[in-house]
Formats: sequence, structure tokens, C-alpha cells
Amino acid sequence: MRFDGREPQQLRPVHIETDYLKHPEGSVLISVGDTKVICSASIEDKVPPFMRNQGKGWITAEYSMLPRATEQRNIRESSKGKVTGRTMEIQRLIGRALRAVVNLDAIGERTIWIDCDVIQADGGTRTASITGAYVAMAQALNKLYKTKKLKGFPVSDFLAATSVGILADGQVVVDLNYVEDSAAHVDMNVVMTGNGEFVELQGTGEEATFSYNQLHELLAGAQAGLAELFEHQKQALGEELSEQIAKAQKR
Amino acid sequence: MRFDGREPQQLRPVHIETDYLKHPEGSVLISVGDTKVICSASIEDKVPPFMRNQGKGWITAEYSMLPRATEQRNIRESSKGKVTGRTMEIQRLIGRALRAVVNLDAIGERTIWIDCDVIQADGGTRTASITGAYVAMAQALNKLYKTKKLKGFPVSDFLAATSVGILADGQVVVDLNYVEDSAAHVDMNVVMTGNGEFVELQGTGEEATFSYNQLHELLAGAQAGLAELFEHQKQALGEELSEQIAKAQKR
Amino acid sequence: MRFDGREPQQLRPVHIETDYLKHPEGSVLISVGDTKVICSASIEDKVPPFMRNQGKGWITAEYSMLPRATEQRNIRESSKGKVTGRTMEIQRLIGRALRAVVNLDAIGERTIWIDCDVIQADGGTRTASITGAYVAMAQALNKLYKTKKLKGFPVSDFLAATSVGILADGQVVVDLNYVEDSAAHVDMNVVMTGNGEFVELQGTGEEATFSYNQLHELLAGAQAGLAELFEHQKQALGEELSEQIAKAQKR
Amino acid sequence: MRFDGREPQQLRPVHIETDYLKHPEGSVLISVGDTKVICSASIEDKVPPFMRNQGKGWITAEYSMLPRATEQRNIRESSKGKVTGRTMEIQRLIGRALRAVVNLDAIGERTIWIDCDVIQADGGTRTASITGAYVAMAQALNKLYKTKKLKGFPVSDFLAATSVGILADGQVVVDLNYVEDSAAHVDMNVVMTGNGEFVELQGTGEEATFSYNQLHELLAGAQAGLAELFEHQKQALGEELSEQIAKAQKR
Amino acid sequence: MRFDGREPQQLRPVHIETDYLKHPEGSVLISVGDTKVICSASIEDKVPPFMRNQGKGWITAEYSMLPRATEQRNIRESSKGKVTGRTMEIQRLIGRALRAVVNLDAIGERTIWIDCDVIQADGGTRTASITGAYVAMAQALNKLYKTKKLKGFPVSDFLAATSVGILADGQVVVDLNYVEDSAAHVDMNVVMTGNGEFVELQGTGEEATFSYNQLHELLAGAQAGLAELFEHQKQALGEELSEQIAKAQKR
Amino acid sequence: MRFDGREPQQLRPVHIETDYLKHPEGSVLISVGDTKVICSASIEDKVPPFMRNQGKGWITAEYSMLPRATEQRNIRESSKGKVTGRTMEIQRLIGRALRAVVNLDAIGERTIWIDCDVIQADGGTRTASITGAYVAMAQALNKLYKTKKLKGFPVSDFLAATSVGILADGQVVVDLNYVEDSAAHVDMNVVMTGNGEFVELQGTGEEATFSYNQLHELLAGAQAGLAELFEHQKQALGEELSEQIAKAQKR
Repeated sequence: MRFDGREPQQLRPVHIETDYLKHPEGSVLISVGDTKVICSASIEDKVPPFMRNQGKGWITAEYSMLPRATEQRNIRESSKGKVTGRTMEIQRLIGRALRAVVNLDAIGERTIWIDCDVIQADGGTRTASITGAYVAMAQALNKLYKTKKLKGFPVSDFLAATSVGILADGQVVVDLNYVEDSAAHVDMNVVMTGNGEFVELQGTGEEATFSYNQLHELLAGAQAGLAELFEHQKQALGEELSEQIAKAQKR
Repeated sequence: MRFDGREPQQLRPVHIETDYLKHPEGSVLISVGDTKVICSASIEDKVPPFMRNQGKGWITAEYSMLPRATEQRNIRESSKGKVTGRTMEIQRLIGRALRAVVNLDAIGERTIWIDCDVIQADGGTRTASITGAYVAMAQALNKLYKTKKLKGFPVSDFLAATSVGILADGQVVVDLNYVEDSAAHVDMNVVMTGNGEFVELQGTGEEATFSYNQLHELLAGAQAGLAELFEHQKQALGEELSEQIAKAQKR
Repeated sequence: MRFDGREPQQLRPVHIETDYLKHPEGSVLISVGDTKVICSASIEDKVPPFMRNQGKGWITAEYSMLPRATEQRNIRESSKGKVTGRTMEIQRLIGRALRAVVNLDAIGERTIWIDCDVIQADGGTRTASITGAYVAMAQALNKLYKTKKLKGFPVSDFLAATSVGILADGQVVVDLNYVEDSAAHVDMNVVMTGNGEFVELQGTGEEATFSYNQLHELLAGAQAGLAELFEHQKQALGEELSEQIAKAQKR
Repeated sequence: MRFDGREPQQLRPVHIETDYLKHPEGSVLISVGDTKVICSASIEDKVPPFMRNQGKGWITAEYSMLPRATEQRNIRESSKGKVTGRTMEIQRLIGRALRAVVNLDAIGERTIWIDCDVIQADGGTRTASITGAYVAMAQALNKLYKTKKLKGFPVSDFLAATSVGILADGQVVVDLNYVEDSAAHVDMNVVMTGNGEFVELQGTGEEATFSYNQLHELLAGAQAGLAELFEHQKQALGEELSEQIAKAQKR
Repeated sequence: MRFDGREPQQLRPVHIETDYLKHPEGSVLISVGDTKVICSASIEDKVPPFMRNQGKGWITAEYSMLPRATEQRNIRESSKGKVTGRTMEIQRLIGRALRAVVNLDAIGERTIWIDCDVIQADGGTRTASITGAYVAMAQALNKLYKTKKLKGFPVSDFLAATSVGILADGQVVVDLNYVEDSAAHVDMNVVMTGNGEFVELQGTGEEATFSYNQLHELLAGAQAGLAELFEHQKQALGEELSEQIAKAQKR
Repeated sequence: MRFDGREPQQLRPVHIETDYLKHPEGSVLISVGDTKVICSASIEDKVPPFMRNQGKGWITAEYSMLPRATEQRNIRESSKGKVTGRTMEIQRLIGRALRAVVNLDAIGERTIWIDCDVIQADGGTRTASITGAYVAMAQALNKLYKTKKLKGFPVSDFLAATSVGILADGQVVVDLNYVEDSAAHVDMNVVMTGNGEFVELQGTGEEATFSYNQLHELLAGAQAGLAELFEHQKQALGEELSEQIAKAQKR
């Protein structure tokens, strides 16, 4: 049994509230336990310079934390005048992950801006961001698909992320909260598509290492957690949109 | 009758949800119509260098908007690498306003960090920030008062803020939303204490001017709106804390 | 009687030296007591991006202090690598104030750059900047008017600014010097047009508040001081240009 | 057969020249094919603030490219005034990886600064940096061990890194050069210790995904390449130091 | 005869107004033709970190131009967020030059901050800055010498600077104004002490070169101009202080 | 005899290795004693904004040091977020010097980017950079000349640089290493063309001064050292290219 009473492979309670904000094309408030992230998807009718004149779209993500999302107040990156390496790593990860399940040709020369703002943090903010941002993005792209003549439905699969880790006692656990994460020897983030393919796999020994067998245990745990997250996403997206994505996925 | 059906002196619906976040010493989600701001108050056990060794505390505020709080996505200040003049003006205003109703000697060498993060913007974000931040701060200071031996109860009065303006047709209105604010000829922010004293008065003709008589009309409108805001604050603070502040106010 | 022997409503000695620099289209050295500011107005034949293709002009201001304008040497903002909040507040105020008395349509797609560089500071640098910058700008715009075919004379009124405050003993005084300003409980900057309309009103209780009656006293004091400043401006501008502005003002 | 004539699991020619610079405590020039990196290890007798008074050491890495290390000249990060997200990701990876094989308690309150400067780039610069930096660091720590009374020999294992990927035709290849890397569907960096434990595993589908079976193929390829890299490191370190590390590894 | 009617070796009119500002320990307004610079010297009772605990003082200089000191308005370095290379070169030169004639041991652990702010520019701003800053600094150090127990009078010689150049027609001229400077083939700044020793010699061919013989002609011209500048400095410093420096110079 | 056994006018051993990198149009590794610099020349088919539409080319230089090029590790300028004054001074010097021996009209609207990266520093890094960069640039321009129809051969002369100085004992020495440079009273950098004309002369008394006679001794020393450097350059450039430059030089 874990610190907060969960089974090793049990996720924390997950809620995805859609249409959370009035301005963005898509937006959700996702909670995974005490971790809460506002994810929004904004559509801009141009692409960054390096993508111009290719007839393709682009997806880019930004990630931030409110100063008091954390136990100790953290200094705003706008006050520091620069974005930290951790933030950059996370926003590059979110953007890359989402691009794996979108047909960029289909959306034309448009940019989908993903904003993930962590309101409250208790571990797993980057995986909650990906899971929530996927829903906001799918809704925004669906709206775009309905109002503009796209070359086809642009979302090609579901996408979610979770963390797995090895605690100090060697136990493999899924969806680590902050206390577990701080003490874990190995920490792995797994981003997967609805049909079970890997998009990202980032495993890190924190002044520690892990064996081939432990890797297998970690991946099995991640798969169990992700299955549950896909169900939450489908519920949030509604039956119609979920079925459309499922159809795209089969092809 | 106004654009959204309100009377000239009518505020938009106001809600103040307290204890909105789990980590800060005080936090609220305030909504004034579609404007929504998360305000938190954090207590740090030291003061900035220019305040050291005076035995007094300090209150400082930071203000930010989510990129998609607005109709058009705005670029993060952390990405720009600098805080804009507008943001600086607002956070200086919030800090100064709150300091007017706190006995800084009573809190000792501590800093109260106020964070106002606008989740959704529809005009009046700076006045909603002050009104909400006051509640978060009062709760944080009350907790501090109860757990530490302070030299006395540190909050000396209520404090709220609203905007008033003169529309293109000359009508004086209270609590302008974004559409009204964009078109107003004169825009005034009024910060007042519970006992009716001015803390800040910032009136600006936007490529326009205003007369002595118009100033009076504006101030009368502000007073009406502020009376209603103080009621919302009292409800949010609860009877016990409200009475304690009322008592402090009388002295 | 005040610290430096002045009556409560008495300004410090004011001098406005025009054509102070050889390069700018308009420039003055204004002294208000020991406060000395070089104000220049430069005309650029384009507008910032957000104003393009509207057929209108723009006025923007920058404000700075020499490092040793002050008692203690202050660090250059170029060395810090950023402009402080105080500077931003002041330069936004100067630009906004001047725009209130210029017909932006008349000047076409041009930018008037106002530079206010404080050579020596003894309180009231922002109000001296506005008062001096107005003169530099009026001269620059007059030159422009004479050499280019504008749609009309672009200056619509006089404009000056002064500070008023409430000292610790409750006395209302006009044109505070640095010593008075540091100790004042309430500090108010008033920007007015020649025909007595408000352009900006910024009143601040410094860890203090002020009542409705005190507001009236402050405004009365400001009006007295401003009347005198308008006379200095007229003398600096010369009879011909002053009359032309007076004529524009009447319409 | 690959583009440059290599077998799928064949590394490019590897050379590690030790004592490349005269000033650092340890330094190498590593070449992996046309990729050339100068790696140096510097010992500083203090730790960063967050590590103070714990009696432990710290290892941190910086990574940079000469502007003309690449086909197209890239702009210096010092000219841009900021470090890019890619650079931050790489330097965090290098530091984290090296910390996994060093006993930080043994080195006391010292910082080992690792500098990896890419002189010429042809793919795999981050893995070459880790492989080369390990050698520079081991030599620097060995010198430290010999001259100061440490609590024990601080290096606990060998450490090397390589890349594996899946090309467009589905082939799994080891040690991708720039041309292969640009076109690969999946790209994975594997950091391993001498005794075959994972330290970091970063697999990324570039607008693509990969299956469980492909993951196995990738890891097998990585292991083959890493075995060869460990031999190069041992040769560079010399017999005595290699044996000492091998002994530490066994415990 | 030159463009503005001067003889080849004739300086422009020089004026040095002392005690120009009320706050600094020493300050002058120097004009060399239409070039006008406010130079101030401020004394701080500590030295920068790299000079601590050596019992010696330090002299450092900052240089800036008002935006409209020039024909075309130049953008403030505070707005750009960085100091240009030209500015850095000039301020390093001013500081280095002044340090050559001050006994840093005598002033103890103090920093002399030199600020040179160009009010109006017409060529030769860096040499006017050195010549004026010397006077401000000598007055500040003399005040320090009179009020604090120093180990001796700290100024060891006079110091002035001028420019010489070779025009397109091969003529060698002294004290180039902006028009001459822009067109000159060779430009040389010479900083000399009162007893005729070189402190700095910076000669530059602007897409041109110069011969050994031309170097001699340039140096002869500089010496003639500098002799005149020393006379202006002595007049500005007054008889008493000039004699004290002359005495120090002899030793 | 000097510290390292050299005669006063003796250079340290000089080596220039050409074609050091595979990507740049020209590149060398120059060593002057223990000072080692990688110099590369890159050709870009456009010019900076201020040079556009003049039909002329431009040459610009960047200079940097590896963090551990020096005895003490120096902090990267990319980490500091800004380029130091020293670096700016050096890169401006390198660019200006090279422009003196190139016919900018002949190369058309192209920019030659010079990158000088100091791998190891032992004094004289700026002069080694100029001497090495000249060779890299000449090779790049020669390639350009051979492949594109230029208006003529663009290199008009040889160019090299060395340092001379006066040690504490009054001795004039050539090519100072770091130990000598740190202790020298006078430090002078001389940049000369192959036909003996000065391009740059920068002499600085470090809290010291130098006389007219000492200047002559310094220049004589520089000339001797430069003669030797030109021989090294010719050898590196090869007979054919050296003769072509020699021919250009004669005209």
C-alpha cells in the first residue's frame, strides 16, 4: 500500500472539465489528484517562419506554474526574465507529443498554440498537461474541421501520458504524487497513443540506475494507467468526437 | 440601459470563492462577471533588503494573465523576457493599495506576497485583483495572527476597488466590462477603505478630458459599487473575521 | 510656512529655456526649483506597427534620470538591462497626457518622440517633465505645421502638470520638493488643460488615506499652481504660437 | 548497408585524445566520425547554494557549439542573449547522467564543472559529449582523489551513451550521423553504466510512434554500440585507472 | 582651411563649467564646439568585489548619450536592454585613462564613479568626456582629501584627451567634428598626462592604413591640442588645486 | 632573457593548421605558444541592413573563449546572457582590421563572418585571432573568387598582429605571454599590413604611462615580430595564393 492508500498501479482521481474558459477554441481544467492544470488550445492562422510555404500546420506548447502552485512559492519566470531549463524541456515534450497524433498536412498553414498553466502542483504536472492538452486540442481541431474545409479530419489517434517510478523500497508505482516523486530512485514518463504505440519514453535514474527487468515492470504499470486515462478522455470528448477519432485511428 | 442590460451603477455578478488553492496561506477565486482572477497570499519570513532591520513587514504584489485569458492570445511575459509597463503599473498599484490597510509594524519582518493571476479577462482585472487579493490577504494575516504572537491584529480596514468611466455618449457607468472599457472616453479606478476614505484615485482621459462636475459623478458611482463589494468581501471572510476587522476599523 | 520658506500654494521658481539643443525639432531645459529636466521632441515619419494605415499620428515618451541627478547615485537602467516599473509608469503618463491635447489625425502617420532626461532631481520630476515636454512638443509641431501641409493646426490646448500633497501635519501643499514628497501622507499629480479640464488625476495615500474633503482641497491647490505654470509656458512659447493655441482651444 | 557504408549496428570510428588542454583538471577531444567535442572537467571548491552544508558534492554540465560546427553557421547563444531549450535539455542530461556514477558524498563540498564544446557536428553530439565527458571527469576525480583525502574513490562505474534510431525504411541503426538523424522516424538516446544498467532512456517518435517490439530492437542495438564505447574509454583512461573503476563497480 | 574655418591644428572653442550639478562630489559641463558633456564624479565608500581587502581604491566610468544628442534620434540603451560595444569601449577607456593619474592606494577602499552623459554630440565625445571627467574627478578627490585622512594627495598629474585624424585629402587635423570624423581615413585618440607621457594611443585606419611618417604628424598635432586643453583644465580647477597637482606631478 | 627563455624580440613558436574544420569556407587552428585559436570564415549571401543596396560586402567578427581556456574557469557569456565589454572590443577590432585589406566592392553584397574561438589562452589571444583569421578569410575569399564572377581579386594585402609591451623592469618585449602581460606596465597591440602600414595601434598604460622614445622602441619590436608572422601566413596560404596577394599588394 502506498503513502496515500493507493494500490501500486492505481491512478489518483482524474477529472477533466471541458470548455473551462470562454475565449480559447478548446480548453479544459484537468485534475489528477491535487494536481490541477488549465490547458487551452488556440488556433492562429499562420505558422512560424521555419514552416512557411510548406502547406503544413504546426503545434507548439507553453507551460507555466502559478507562483503558489507549489508548497514553497516559486519565482515567476517573467520576473526572472528567462524561462528555466525544466520549463523548456516540458514545453518541448508537450508539443512534440501532440504532433505525433495530428495530421499536420490536414490543418493547413495554421499554428495550434497549447497553453498549460499549472494552478496547483502535486507531482505529474507534465503528464497531466499532455493528457489535458490533448482534449483541449481535439476539441479545437474538431471545431476547425467543422467550420473550415480541411483536407480531412486532422486527429489520428488518442494520446495520454502518465508517470511511473521505482520507490526507494524497489516497488514500481504508477502516477507518482509529489512526495513519491521526490523520493523515487527512477522516474519515467510514458506518452502513448490509443492504439498502444509509444510516442515518448523518458526514463531517468536519479543518482541511481535501473535494469532491463525493471524497465519491463515500469512499462507494464504505465500501460495500465494509460488505459484508464483514455477512458477519461473519451468521456470528456463525448461520444461523437471519440468515435470519429477511433475511426481515424483504425486507418 | 447598458450593452449587457445593466443599469449605469450596477455591478456585474460578483463571486468570491475562498480557500481555492491548497498551498497558499490565503487564496480566492474572484469572478466579476466574466473576469476571473486567482488571488493568493503567501507569507515569507523575511523582508526585501531595503526594509531590513526596521522591525516592519512588507506587502508586494505580482500580476499576470494566462495567455488565453483574452480574446486574442497574448504572449507570455516569460517568453518576452520582460514584464510590460502595464503589468508593472498594476502590480505596484495592488501592493500600494493593500499596504494602506495593514499595520506593517504588527506583522514583524515578514513579506506578504500577493499573486493575482487572471484566468479570464473581461475588463476590470486590476480592480477585481485588489478586491480579491484583500480577502486572500486578510485570511492569511488572520492565520498568522492566530499562530504567531503579533503586536496586534494587523488588518486595519476593509479595502476594495472598482472602475468607473464616461462612455462616448457621456453616460457615467460603474464596473466597465471590456467592450465598454475599450470605448470609454474617461476611465477611473477607485480604491477605497471600508470607512469611505480614498486610497487610490486614478482617472485618465483617453485622448479626452473630464470636468470637475464629471469627477463628482464618477466618484458617486464608484461609492455605490464599492458598498456592494464590501458586502461580498464580508460574506467571503465570514462573520468572525469581518467583525474583527470592523472593530479594528473603528479605532 | 514650509520647510523652504514657501507659502502652501506657492510653486518653486520656474524657468523654461527653449531651443536648448541644436538637433531636436523642439527642446527645452525646464527648472522647477532644483529639479531640472531636458525635454526634447523629435519627429519621425512613421508610426509604430499597431497604428499603421490609420492615417493618424502617435506620441510616445521616454523618461530617464542621470545617475547622479539624485542625492545617492542611482544605477543606470542600461546597466541593469531593464527599465524599472517607476520609469515605465512615468513615461506612459507623459505620453498619454500629451496625446490629450494633440489632434492625432492632423499630424498624419508620424510619431512624436518625447525624451525627458532629468539632469537634477528634487521632487516633481514627472510633472516638470510634462510641463516642459508640452513646450518642446508645441514648438516641434508648429515647425511641422509650417513646413508640411497638415490638415490643420494640431495642438488643441495648453497642458501642464503639478503635484499636490498632504504633509504629516495635515497641511495641503503645492509643488512638493523631495524632502516634502518623501514625508507626505498623500501625493497627487494633476494634469490639466488650459481650459481647466482634467487629463490625469493620480492620487495615492502612502500607507495612508484621504477623505472627500481633502480631495477638494488638493484639487484647489493644484489649480492655483497650474494657472501659474500656464503663464510660464506662454512666455516660453512666445506670443504668436500662444495665441494660435488659444484660438484652437476656443473651438 | 547504410548511407556511409556501415552495418546497422556499427559505430563510426571513435577516438578519445586525453589531456587535450593544459588548464583543466581533466580534458579530452572525442571524435565519433566527424563529430568532435572538447570535454573538460574543472573542480571548484564550493557547491551551488541549494547544496550547501550537506557535505556532498555536485556535478553540473554546460554544452555549446561553435557557430561553424554545423553546415549552416548557427548564431552564438551569447549573441542571442539566451540559451536555447535544446541546449538546456542537453546540459541537464549530461549532468544528470554523470551524477549517476559518482559518489557525491565522497567528493565533499566541491562542484565538478563539465564543459562540452562541439567543434564539429555530424549527429550524436550529446551522446559523444557524455562519453567524452565521462573520461575527462574520471581523470579529474582521480587527480583529486590522489591529492586530497577523500572518503573513498568517488567513481562507481563506467558510463557511456549512444543513439539508436529507426530509419524511414524501418531499419534499426546505431550511432546515427546527421543525415540519418534528420530523416529518422524514431530517435533514442541510451545512457548506460559499465555493468549494463540504464541511467537514461529517451525515445522520441518524430511525428511517428514505435511499438514494444521496436523498443526491444533499439535497446539491443544500443547495447552492442555501448560495449564498444566502454572499450574506447578504458583505453583512454589507461590500465590503472580502468582497473580501479572496475573494482569500484564490482562492489 | 577646414570646413568650419579652423586651422589644421586649431581646437574648437572649449568651456568647462564646474559645480554644474548640486548632488555629485564633483561635476562639470564641458563644451568642445557643439559637443557638450555633463561629467560627474561620485564617491562610494566601497570597492567592487575583485578589489576588496587590498586597501586600494577603484575608478570606473559610465558613458551615455541622450537620445537626441545626435542628428538622428538614437534608441536608448535602457530600451534595447543592453549596452552597445561602442559604449563599453568608451567607458572602459575613460576609466583606464583616469586611473593612470590617480594614486589608488591613497584613496583607500573607495570607488570613484565617473558619469559622462553626452547632452549634444558633434564629434569627439569620448575625448571631451575624458577631459571633463578629469576636472570633476580632481575636484571630488580634493574634497575627499580635505575631509578624510588620506595617505597623501591622490592626484598625480593632469590628464586630457583629443582626437587627431587624416582627412581624405591627406591633411592632418586636430579635434575633428562630426562631419570631419565621418569622412576621415585615419582617426586617432590620444590621452596624455600633463608632463607629456602617453596614457592611451588608439589609432585606427577606417578601411585605410597609415604610415610611420603620418603617425609622427598625428602625434605632433595631438600634442599641440593637448597643451591648450591643459590650460582650460587649470583655469577650471582654480589656482590652488592646479598648483597642488603640479607639485604632485613634479615628484 | 625572459621568463620562458626567449629573447626580447623573439616570438613564441607559431603554427597555422589550415582546413581545420570541414564545414566553413575557410578555417585554421593557430597556435602561438600555448595560445590556441580556431578561426573560421563563413560566407553569407547577404549584408546587414545598414549596408544594403550599396553593392558592397561586409566583414564582421565574433570572438569567444571556451570556459576552461583559462587557468580559472570563466563563466560562459551565454550563461551570463550578455557579451562582456572586453569581448565586444576584441570582436570590433578583428572585424575592423580585416576590412582594411579587403576590397569590399569586389565581393558584392556578401558578409564574411569571422569566428575566433579560443581553445586555450596564454596571452595574445586577440592578436593570434587576427593573424589566424586573416588566413581563414583569405582562403574563403579565394574559393569565392574562383567559383563566382567577382569584380577582381578581393584581398589587397597581408595582415597580421602582435603585441608588444614594457615590463616592470623597463624592458621592451614582443609577443607577451599571460604571465608577462599581467605584469606589464604598458601593453600595445599593433596590426600591420604586409607592406608595413599601420591598421591599428592600441597602446595602453596600465596605471602607468609611456614616453615618445618608448613608443619608438615598441614599434620597432612589433615590426620585427610581424615580419616573422607574415612568413608563417605565406606558408599556410601556399605559394599560389601568397603570390596572388603579393601581386594585389603591389598595385
